Amino acid sequence: MRPPEQELENLGDPETAPLRNSGSCNPTYPGPSEEWRKQRGVGSPYLFIQMNELLGSPENQEWRETGRWILFEEKLDLEAKHWSSPHVPTLSLSSIWELRALLTTGLVLLDCSVQSLSELTEQVSRLESLNPEGRERLKSVLLQRPQHHIQPMCWSAVGRLGTRLCRGGHPTETLSSAVEPHLKDQLQSPLWQKLPPGTEAAAVLVGELDFLTQRLGVFVHFLEPVVLGTLTEVPLPIRFICIILGPPVLGKGYHEMGRAAAVLLSDPLFRWSACQASSPQDLLSAMDAFLEEVVVLPPGGVDLTERIPPPKCLFNVHKRLPSQLQESKDSCNGNISSKRDRYGYEHEPEPASKELQRTGRLFGGLMQDIRRKAPWYLSDFLDALDAQSFSAILYIYLATIANAITFGGLLGDATDNTQGVLESFLGTAVAGSIFCLFAGQPLTILSSTGPVLVFERILFAFSRDHGLDYLPFRLWVGIWVAVFCLVLVATEASVLVRYFTRFTEEGFCALISLIFIYDAISKMLSLAEVYPIYRPGLSGDTGSSPYGCLCYFQDTKGNISLWKGKSPEAKDAALGMDLGLANVSLLSPPECALQGGQSRGLGCHFVPDVAFFSLILFFATFLCATILKHFKSSHFFPSRVRKVISDFSMVLAILLGCGLDASLGLSTPKLIVPSEFKPTYPDRKWLVPLFGANPWWLCLATALPALLMSILVFMDQQITAVILNRKEYQLQKGAGFHLDLFWVAMLMLLTSAFGLPWYVSTTVISLAHMDSLRRESATCAPGELPRFLGIREQRLTGLVVFILTGASIFLAPGLKFIPMPVLYGTFFYMGIAALSSTQFSERMKLLLMPAKHQPDLLFLRHVRLSRIHLFTTVQLVCLGLLWAVKSTAAAIVFPLMLLGLVGIRKALEWVFSPQELSWLDDPVPEENAKKVQQEKSELIHQLRTPEINISVN
Amino acid sequence: MRPPEQELENLGDPETAPLRNSGSCNPTYPGPSEEWRKQRGVGSPYLFIQMNELLGSPENQEWRETGRWILFEEKLDLEAKHWSSPHVPTLSLSSIWELRALLTTGLVLLDCSVQSLSELTEQVSRLESLNPEGRERLKSVLLQRPQHHIQPMCWSAVGRLGTRLCRGGHPTETLSSAVEPHLKDQLQSPLWQKLPPGTEAAAVLVGELDFLTQRLGVFVHFLEPVVLGTLTEVPLPIRFICIILGPPVLGKGYHEMGRAAAVLLSDPLFRWSACQASSPQDLLSAMDAFLEEVVVLPPGGVDLTERIPPPKCLFNVHKRLPSQLQESKDSCNGNISSKRDRYGYEHEPEPASKELQRTGRLFGGLMQDIRRKAPWYLSDFLDALDAQSFSAILYIYLATIANAITFGGLLGDATDNTQGVLESFLGTAVAGSIFCLFAGQPLTILSSTGPVLVFERILFAFSRDHGLDYLPFRLWVGIWVAVFCLVLVATEASVLVRYFTRFTEEGFCALISLIFIYDAISKMLSLAEVYPIYRPGLSGDTGSSPYGCLCYFQDTKGNISLWKGKSPEAKDAALGMDLGLANVSLLSPPECALQGGQSRGLGCHFVPDVAFFSLILFFATFLCATILKHFKSSHFFPSRVRKVISDFSMVLAILLGCGLDASLGLSTPKLIVPSEFKPTYPDRKWLVPLFGANPWWLCLATALPALLMSILVFMDQQITAVILNRKEYQLQKGAGFHLDLFWVAMLMLLTSAFGLPWYVSTTVISLAHMDSLRRESATCAPGELPRFLGIREQRLTGLVVFILTGASIFLAPGLKFIPMPVLYGTFFYMGIAALSSTQFSERMKLLLMPAKHQPDLLFLRHVRLSRIHLFTTVQLVCLGLLWAVKSTAAAIVFPLMLLGLVGIRKALEWVFSPQELSWLDDPVPEENAKKVQQEKSELIHQLRTPEINISVN
Repeated sequence: MRPPEQELENLGDPETAPLRNSGSCNPTYPGPSEEWRKQRGVGSPYLFIQMNELLGSPENQEWRETGRWILFEEKLDLEAKHWSSPHVPTLSLSSIWELRALLTTGLVLLDCSVQSLSELTEQVSRLESLNPEGRERLKSVLLQRPQHHIQPMCWSAVGRLGTRLCRGGHPTETLSSAVEPHLKDQLQSPLWQKLPPGTEAAAVLVGELDFLTQRLGVFVHFLEPVVLGTLTEVPLPIRFICIILGPPVLGKGYHEMGRAAAVLLSDPLFRWSACQASSPQDLLSAMDAFLEEVVVLPPGGVDLTERIPPPKCLFNVHKRLPSQLQESKDSCNGNISSKRDRYGYEHEPEPASKELQRTGRLFGGLMQDIRRKAPWYLSDFLDALDAQSFSAILYIYLATIANAITFGGLLGDATDNTQGVLESFLGTAVAGSIFCLFAGQPLTILSSTGPVLVFERILFAFSRDHGLDYLPFRLWVGIWVAVFCLVLVATEASVLVRYFTRFTEEGFCALISLIFIYDAISKMLSLAEVYPIYRPGLSGDTGSSPYGCLCYFQDTKGNISLWKGKSPEAKDAALGMDLGLANVSLLSPPECALQGGQSRGLGCHFVPDVAFFSLILFFATFLCATILKHFKSSHFFPSRVRKVISDFSMVLAILLGCGLDASLGLSTPKLIVPSEFKPTYPDRKWLVPLFGANPWWLCLATALPALLMSILVFMDQQITAVILNRKEYQLQKGAGFHLDLFWVAMLMLLTSAFGLPWYVSTTVISLAHMDSLRRESATCAPGELPRFLGIREQRLTGLVVFILTGASIFLAPGLKFIPMPVLYGTFFYMGIAALSSTQFSERMKLLLMPAKHQPDLLFLRHVRLSRIHLFTTVQLVCLGLLWAVKSTAAAIVFPLMLLGLVGIRKALEWVFSPQELSWLDDPVPEENAKKVQQEKSELIHQLRTPEINISVN
Repeated sequence: MRPPEQELENLGDPETAPLRNSGSCNPTYPGPSEEWRKQRGVGSPYLFIQMNELLGSPENQEWRETGRWILFEEKLDLEAKHWSSPHVPTLSLSSIWELRALLTTGLVLLDCSVQSLSELTEQVSRLESLNPEGRERLKSVLLQRPQHHIQPMCWSAVGRLGTRLCRGGHPTETLSSAVEPHLKDQLQSPLWQKLPPGTEAAAVLVGELDFLTQRLGVFVHFLEPVVLGTLTEVPLPIRFICIILGPPVLGKGYHEMGRAAAVLLSDPLFRWSACQASSPQDLLSAMDAFLEEVVVLPPGGVDLTERIPPPKCLFNVHKRLPSQLQESKDSCNGNISSKRDRYGYEHEPEPASKELQRTGRLFGGLMQDIRRKAPWYLSDFLDALDAQSFSAILYIYLATIANAITFGGLLGDATDNTQGVLESFLGTAVAGSIFCLFAGQPLTILSSTGPVLVFERILFAFSRDHGLDYLPFRLWVGIWVAVFCLVLVATEASVLVRYFTRFTEEGFCALISLIFIYDAISKMLSLAEVYPIYRPGLSGDTGSSPYGCLCYFQDTKGNISLWKGKSPEAKDAALGMDLGLANVSLLSPPECALQGGQSRGLGCHFVPDVAFFSLILFFATFLCATILKHFKSSHFFPSRVRKVISDFSMVLAILLGCGLDASLGLSTPKLIVPSEFKPTYPDRKWLVPLFGANPWWLCLATALPALLMSILVFMDQQITAVILNRKEYQLQKGAGFHLDLFWVAMLMLLTSAFGLPWYVSTTVISLAHMDSLRRESATCAPGELPRFLGIREQRLTGLVVFILTGASIFLAPGLKFIPMPVLYGTFFYMGIAALSSTQFSERMKLLLMPAKHQPDLLFLRHVRLSRIHLFTTVQLVCLGLLWAVKSTAAAIVFPLMLLGLVGIRKALEWVFSPQELSWLDDPVPEENAKKVQQEKSELIHQLRTPEINISVN
């Protein structure tokens, strides 16, 4: 069966001779030049492999497509007539051995140059073992048209045909042979849409033929890919053909051999070796090299009927490629290739990062930032011109609005409505626009953040307790913060960010989350005090009874004069005792007022049902937000729809709460919004006076709280900045840490002057912003995630978002329909989501888990459980201390305590070994980066979502 | 390196010569006799394999345990010092090949009879390639004591040592050598507790020795297992030793070869072949046979750092064993081996099942049942004497009580309290005890069930609408049902059960579930009518206002006489209009009553907060039950605790609801329970009169509804009976289908006469009962589920449960604290749980899922999606029709409609092909049983839980 020697000689390519016989596991492959690779058809990363099988009764056999491969296997479930999901193929070792044995004796045509199927058929049927009749029958079988299983699809694809085939780079001659009636079907395949131009194909033909007496194995590699009629379901030029035919046998022998051939071809390294091969022996060596690297599971380890889902990350495939072929694939999905921990944090900026290198001059960093960003300024607007920007704007606008409403509402609560939703909208619009226009990293979104809100509340409580005029007091704090920040900019303090480890950040995050959760619950409980519940057994004259309210009419007989001179409370109290009046009715207070009467009585203050309804609103909002957020990982509806629902979960939850409230019409407490464009606090002008009622020396004393606030602003701002400028986002235009901080300081000044909220970068929305501007490859193989191509860096989307936010101030009157319990519900949700996203909470869960049931986390593999628990306990104690400080009168120093966490972390180095800390706290050590990377690939979805967050923003 | 020929000769066992060389993949293995197997050490299914590795610097090397295998691999994470979870080992093919090459030239001692480690060491070090110094060093290295990693454990294990070792069956001589100081540590290992007596061990020793120049490979099989000091962490006799030593190399070469050797030894077939082998060549053939059956994944298919979880079911391993070795392992976890669908249903009883074969004589089946069960009667009480029975009684008692309360409450609701909770308790106790004493299958638990409840409600509505006296009417229905059931018993109708397919059952189940859900919601809405919500905008004189209630004192001036002669309603209405009275106060109604006054006014009927609080109770109960039920699959707390919480979820949910209600003290509607032991309906005696106020002819007319009821009872009773008597439960004492139905009929008579609820078998609690009496093997390998040994069949647990239930009638006064919303919540939960457990609901979900995201269900692989959707649509239409019938006046015929489903199913055979129906509806076809079985193994947990159910019981 071995083909004549001279035929092989003719087909061989003498040019590549020195590169041959490289099919071993040697990592130092000879590097083919770019040009050569294109010639040899290894330029495209993909090969589409289709297996056609002879099915049916012996008299009525026909070729049916039964499987296809690109990176993974898809099987055609013949009965159900549908493709399985892509899965990792499982083979038996014997099928590979049988294939190897068959090819040892079979026909191997390397660098073949036939141009049509009939020509190839001619060569195949010329094999010695066949009689003339057998040859004719074999030819007719091979030339029979296969039945593909093509799923119906829109017809728009047909128009693209010409371009695609031309882009494929093969000659027009073959194009014409491809254009035939069947082609229309082929172009309906959804697969065709997803394959990149230049993709080639391979066909594996497998079947039982009763006129054959011996097995027939053929392996063909074409020097130039050719379009061979409709051999494959998509009209791609064919690079490889493998034919396995033989007499009928029991079992699935040929089918499994065909699968083995297809799986071999789906391996890029084997393909590469097969392209180099000049003799059948080279091919066999390539197979052996493949076998060297397969993974073996013992019998019974997996069930072969099970379909193993593709791994999230394709390391091994890519690592094994000769280095020159890797370039576009050396990272897993592009954006998580470099080292960072599972929350997407990178504590130590890369040493190479120019942006964080100290220049040693005053304002040197700022100057450098301006110099770096200035050349991109025009392109920062031009680059936005893409349809993607619209969806990004819509998404970020809604997220910003939701944030402005919730934080505005809570700020109003925290400051007794000295500031409120209107200030929140106005401030967001102004500060955001300015930042987007001038900042170093315009993808950043400014917003009110949790830490700043918490600090502002402490500040307000302090000023109230000491009888200060809040807004002027706050103005001076803002001035000082701006000054301190400028000092930080001047001294290039941003390079210090590297000393904040995860320990610090998670302590920070956990504290803020706990404050959110605690506040949401305590606000709900305080509602129950405002709207007391009537409890029959406990009622009395406590005001919690609904009974005891009368409506008095003043007009006709003047009996009401009897009440003159008494305070309203005294009247109400008296009413319960003695009653001998006419002109009294039992109308409800609103009706009474309508009819000109006056309601009197302890029961008039009673509002039924509101407390429990508020509770229902609170939980409904929380559950709705949680469920919709996780809707993304459900299996219902197309992933696009799921993503939209998940992204807008917060907005939908608020809308649901408002709808529920409006439908019942209960008098729940609502968000306070001024009816016209003026500050929420009624007695003030926009511009805050410098001193107001405060003593003059306060302008100096405020330096102290401002120092604390500066620490907070610096930490909150710079940590976010580092996250956004991570290497894996492949930003082209560089960062601007110092410039960003400069503008934050300037805006601090501006907002303080006008009594608007303070703003710093918010991690969550900024990441969502970048995510909505991701550029990804449109083409990918089934089972593969799209490749990341970069971020659309520009200033326009952010700018438009903030202009829209500014315009939304006119929506403000509509906001007064939002019930406060709904806002508390969203805050409760944010607290829970942020807390549960930390590794700290994960480790706390471990405390409750028996070792047997613990997940296979990397740090569990490397650190003793008792040490992990010790670390967690230390964190818990720190958190307890922080909470204690926060609850006392010394609450204002909590930023200092946060900074103290850095010191505690330093002290931990005496207790824990560097290895332990490297797993529990530090950035991932270099040697483990690969392993960790894989674990992280699962977390990419979490990173993309706004709510799974490190600090509560 | 090959050992001298004569040495091998000596070690060979001539007796087994004809059995040798069987290491091929041939399924017809020569069958060794039982005795021979014991001799050869293949009697125990387990082999404990431990890998000891030489670690440390060359000067300071020591043996460390780094891995262990039984069925799966456990690695020691050296840094974290803990064992990984059991996982499927992944090998590289080259490590197996290298091992094979090493053993080809290495020392293979088969049927070796050395008795100590030093003796073996002597033999190993006698290899030619070593110089005398090397020999000594090698000996000292091999005799060094290894460092095991043993997790601390309770010391009770030590006491067991003697018995365990003796039960292991090896001579006392080796026992004494094992008892040494280190032993105490070994016996602390949790692993030791789990291994069955007779387990043997294998040791794989791997390391780098700088004085070696060549690789050294040794494989030893002992004719008699020997205890070799502390070679393994558990003191087991050793059957195999594999030593792989060599000069230092780069990479993990020896480690991987050692793993390959361990994985080979963990394969029962290889082990079996190695026991037969008489020459090194036989061993190599066994390795080749192993390689023939491994599963190969292409490079990049899985990451080798990932730890593949063990498959749920170990088919392949067991199937490959020579048939004689399979016996105890041929089913996956024992109780799901035979064919049945994913809800645990088996529509067609096995043809061989004696219990369902027609005798052809009147009452022939009944007689046969009595004859079959009588001999077991005494043992039915003696077999219960086990500690397990106590926990079963507690669990089933709580489940029965919860059921009695909920169904009693709903029955009271459905029949305007003609029957109630007290009847429910009494009836359950009486009917259950009698059934447990005399029935054919005493593991069955009788209970009120959903279908019967629905029918009873329709019956009550009918009797009310036609002005009938309900209880006598019901008595006649009961008499007729008993008569019809006796006819069914006489004619052996139970054999007809096979015509009910899943289509029927799911229709049945879905309808009942929907009725439950609908009822729960409508009851909650009706609460909002009884306790209206005050809505400020919509109030008025509709009575929904809390304002307008006054307290009048009649005593002093007699002004109240003014009201005399007017109806209370008229007075209340008049009060709103005109008021000029003294002696009036604004006290709340209860206080007013306390002080001797009378409350008057529309507002007095207003009870605030109850509507929303009821809603909160409803959802809290539902969510609590749902979450606690699923707590079993979480990872927190030991699995025992989780199971208890999950099992008692319903009880805990009710308790939570009651606690919430009691803590607030609102006047929510509560369960109505008579304060003393008398019927809930006040004006009746226990014994129901035969006619009461009904006309005489009604006793004939009731035959018609009774016929419908009989259909329902027959379906509900027999389907449950078939499920409980399934083959996989391995019941020894046989079933009693006819006897069971006979007693159900008799009890129907009894309960009708006393106005108690009707009872049939309930699937859910009965399955829970059987589950709590499962006997499982105490020993199992890591990663393996315990093996099922059978059910503790007896009458005592059930009897005690029902006696306790009877005694609980005296708890009844305490039940009046249960709020009705809590009961509605549990019913809502039961409806949702039952509906979501059907394949029908799974297929409905598919309607919303894009094909790409659909789970890999078996029927999706075999039936076209459009056909599946068609089938689902037909079911939906049927369900719609059933619902329509149920909602009209013809509701009473709904059992007939359910029977009509059988006809529709028959008609579907014209629309769908038999293949399609076999996947969508019928019991699983024989040839697919194996595949399906695997899918089912995942569902075993669902089967064990009461709430995931087929019909709502």
